[in-house]
Amino acid sequence: MLRRLNSAATLRELRDGGEGTLSELAARVGLSRPTTEGVLGELMERALVAEDAPRPGAGLGRPARRYRFRARAGHALGVDIDARRARVVVADLTGAVVGGHVAGLAEQAPPRERIAAVRAAVKAGLRDASVERRSLWAVAAGTPGVVAPDGTVTSCTVIPGWTGVRLARELGRSFPCPVLVENDANLAALAERWRGAARDADDVVCVHAALHTGMGALLGGRLHRGRWGAAGEIGMLPELGLRDTTAALVPDADPGPLFEQAERVLADAARGVPAARDAVQRLAARMARGIAAMALVLDPEMVVLGGPLIRTGDALVAELRRRVAPLCPSPVRIEASELGDESVGLGAVRLALDRIDEDLFRLDRPADTASSAADEHEAAQ
Amino acid sequence: MLRRLNSAATLRELRDGGEGTLSELAARVGLSRPTTEGVLGELMERALVAEDAPRPGAGLGRPARRYRFRARAGHALGVDIDARRARVVVADLTGAVVGGHVAGLAEQAPPRERIAAVRAAVKAGLRDASVERRSLWAVAAGTPGVVAPDGTVTSCTVIPGWTGVRLARELGRSFPCPVLVENDANLAALAERWRGAARDADDVVCVHAALHTGMGALLGGRLHRGRWGAAGEIGMLPELGLRDTTAALVPDADPGPLFEQAERVLADAARGVPAARDAVQRLAARMARGIAAMALVLDPEMVVLGGPLIRTGDALVAELRRRVAPLCPSPVRIEASELGDESVGLGAVRLALDRIDEDLFRLDRPADTASSAADEHEAAQ
Repeated sequence: MLRRLNSAATLRELRDGGEGTLSELAARVGLSRPTTEGVLGELMERALVAEDAPRPGAGLGRPARRYRFRARAGHALGVDIDARRARVVVADLTGAVVGGHVAGLAEQAPPRERIAAVRAAVKAGLRDASVERRSLWAVAAGTPGVVAPDGTVTSCTVIPGWTGVRLARELGRSFPCPVLVENDANLAALAERWRGAARDADDVVCVHAALHTGMGALLGGRLHRGRWGAAGEIGMLPELGLRDTTAALVPDADPGPLFEQAERVLADAARGVPAARDAVQRLAARMARGIAAMALVLDPEMVVLGGPLIRTGDALVAELRRRVAPLCPSPVRIEASELGDESVGLGAVRLALDRIDEDLFRLDRPADTASSAADEHEAAQ
Repeated sequence: MLRRLNSAATLRELRDGGEGTLSELAARVGLSRPTTEGVLGELMERALVAEDAPRPGAGLGRPARRYRFRARAGHALGVDIDARRARVVVADLTGAVVGGHVAGLAEQAPPRERIAAVRAAVKAGLRDASVERRSLWAVAAGTPGVVAPDGTVTSCTVIPGWTGVRLARELGRSFPCPVLVENDANLAALAERWRGAARDADDVVCVHAALHTGMGALLGGRLHRGRWGAAGEIGMLPELGLRDTTAALVPDADPGPLFEQAERVLADAARGVPAARDAVQRLAARMARGIAAMALVLDPEMVVLGGPLIRTGDALVAELRRRVAPLCPSPVRIEASELGDESVGLGAVRLALDRIDEDLFRLDRPADTASSAADEHEAAQ
């Protein structure tokens, strides 16, 4: 147990605090040199730490060897699946994005076809990142709808045929590691707290404006999933104006893809086209009620507006700010996401990394995730 | 620090586990006899523990003295203030209710008059409980509306002139101890978890159906107050049907007090009077949307229906159960409160006791709440 504690502390220090010599690390972690030496030996055996050639020093004597966290000992993969595309993000163990892929999907594609397309996108993403599948230590996927703790989509109105799909199990077949599935707005919330607008907040509501508008909440810095994974599904009440967000922007849509038409309206509104500005105002008036409902229930520190329909500085953001405030008795801080279209994919990576951390830093048994596969992988690169 | 830890553990054991001899207590707490003896001496000096005459034992030798927690060393007082009455509940340090008082208030009474009436009700409650004011260690009051952390009512539509009243400060003048103020639905939630329907749940939504319907939520077993104390104010959205709950039951009200007429409608509905049943159904249809909004945001383990308009087994409870379910994607467990009209007062007592516990069991400095006033009080009884 003590050995495990020392090992976890040293590994964390190397990952978060950067490389160092044996003496430096012993001092930074607060362990003796012999203990640190033993721990480093074990971490090298587990392929989590590498030894670098000593730097030719200016000082006297033999320069000391340096140890570093092997950020690419394993990888996390995040997938954002929605009606019209799949986005794959590959990251190393420090969370640095090392590659990815975006594939368009037919909005009406049945689940089997959609999952096959996701598999192909994962393959392309891994190729782009030069990462082998066996180097993945955890995978997380985001989807619209309610996701049960076992990764089954229990309710989804955005993707045809999606309700009832055992997504974690289906995707699990393609990977040698744990596969998690989570609601997309929940993942967007994780991303905003990790690398977005909510870095300094603990109680956060994240709005994910897409075909429908979803909501996710962090309370006390942690994702609030609810008893059945259904927290944030306030869009189920039609009078709160969160359904068919995209359609609301283009009431007289052509038969073509809706989302592109909605994007055009947003661009026109930004250029000051009166009809487009009117459409944005109508949408904001609708959405404001749903956002206010979430803010009224939770009274959060901040609300982050994100998702594919939100762009910083856009008229929609300004209109929502203006319309949510009068509906709430206390001040509501509203910020626009700066993660653009990438929030759900990044949030999926964060969820996968959290899963990896659980294994890496658990104290009750050896972390086996750093299996021999990692060594083979490094050798193959 | 260690002495304080031993003292807190012994006090807690005496309070929660009951009286005992020196040897029994030493064994129960896991301390040595001499340490326990020292701790008991100190607790007796602080008037928190009393020594009882030994029981004439059947065994050989001198019977041992017995020590007990002095439940009436201090008291907690809870007040429930709403538009039409003030309810005072007095409890001892174990939470046993030892007295109280209910006073009717004029619905249109201005704040000054209302607070004076509350003071008079407190006086009557203390008399009823035979508790002296200086024996109070903490007071908590519940009110409709949004309450800021400093105990100011920042927004209230139920009580005339109540917005802006510094209630904690106003009430504080009458008491020699800390005075806390909290939203009434939040206190009802605390009461349901302490002694009501939510004893086994950590994530709970409590509905408080009164003149308006308020909401409180416990998340992870703790009250979720929000950034500005405004969490649960979903009733601000009029389309969710939580405002003017009582008025909705009696659309053609006489000029007399509204609440009594609403109670008559509920009683008539229970007897099967068709017009009254229709009124209850209309109310349920309205309220269901607000309750569903709360359940959709939080996906809680259970929803407790409480407040003066709710009675176990009533048609309103059955109707709400029937109407909330289809609005939510996941099952919602709905239970009726069994605390009746007393939930807010009890919740206020719980909040006051929590404040007392903070002082009693804090480890960084001696607990001074058990001041000499307590001794004088006991002497006076």
